[in-house]
Amino acid sequence: MSIYQKILVAIDLTEEAPQVLNKAVEVSKALGAQLILAHVVEPVGYAYGGDIPMDLTELQDQLDKAAKDQLSQYGDQYGVSKENQVVTVGRPESEIHRLSKEQDVDLVIVGSHGRKGFQLLLGSTANGVLHGTVCDVLAVRIH
Amino acid sequence: MSIYQKILVAIDLTEEAPQVLNKAVEVSKALGAQLILAHVVEPVGYAYGGDIPMDLTELQDQLDKAAKDQLSQYGDQYGVSKENQVVTVGRPESEIHRLSKEQDVDLVIVGSHGRKGFQLLLGSTANGVLHGTVCDVLAVRIH
Repeated sequence: MSIYQKILVAIDLTEEAPQVLNKAVEVSKALGAQLILAHVVEPVGYAYGGDIPMDLTELQDQLDKAAKDQLSQYGDQYGVSKENQVVTVGRPESEIHRLSKEQDVDLVIVGSHGRKGFQLLLGSTANGVLHGTVCDVLAVRIH
Repeated sequence: MSIYQKILVAIDLTEEAPQVLNKAVEVSKALGAQLILAHVVEPVGYAYGGDIPMDLTELQDQLDKAAKDQLSQYGDQYGVSKENQVVTVGRPESEIHRLSKEQDVDLVIVGSHGRKGFQLLLGSTANGVLHGTVCDVLAVRIH
């Protein structure tokens, strides 16, 4: 039995994603584990935060769709099937924790910039993921 | 070529070390990587911090020797040769960063309690290691 059966890789959709994906695919293959490819779309409201009431539903739907399309392209490129692709909306750390519990994942892979200080404490997904998951976490250093 | 050639596992010498060691050995085998087993002894002065000048050299030497003995036992048990065992003295995070650069390590494995909040921000080795290494970090959740 392999030490990791089910691996979840959580990526953003920037040009840095392939670095994390590459590692995740290689590790999963080497360990014979199932790989789930996840992306968390942050709710538009978080970024907007304005005082004027606006209906952001349509914008959110567009973002979700764009994310699904992009993830699906990565899926094709890296050989991750549709059933193993997940797009959700929420706070990245919380969603990654929720997904990894729900899907009974035993290793989460995320990218890490290795920033120091406040920037990291307040913002980094790798950091947030490390603090709350019940499974192991592989932080892939982004170069 | 395997994605990781040289893995460093940094352990404390508590009863939790075998959980981390087990994972490190399995991962290294599966990936065909060299495994370096490291332990960092914290300088006695850090813990003492008293006002009365004392010569702590002998105590420090005893601690170093005890650590080397314990590491060597783990080495025998987990099949890590003497050349791949390192005991150093210093701050765990800094020493792990230094060792991983010096030895050209591409993955560092550490244990993680996944504590939240201040306790982690101030004290956790996994956290400190994550913030400063230039290589990937696998945090093994301790149960």
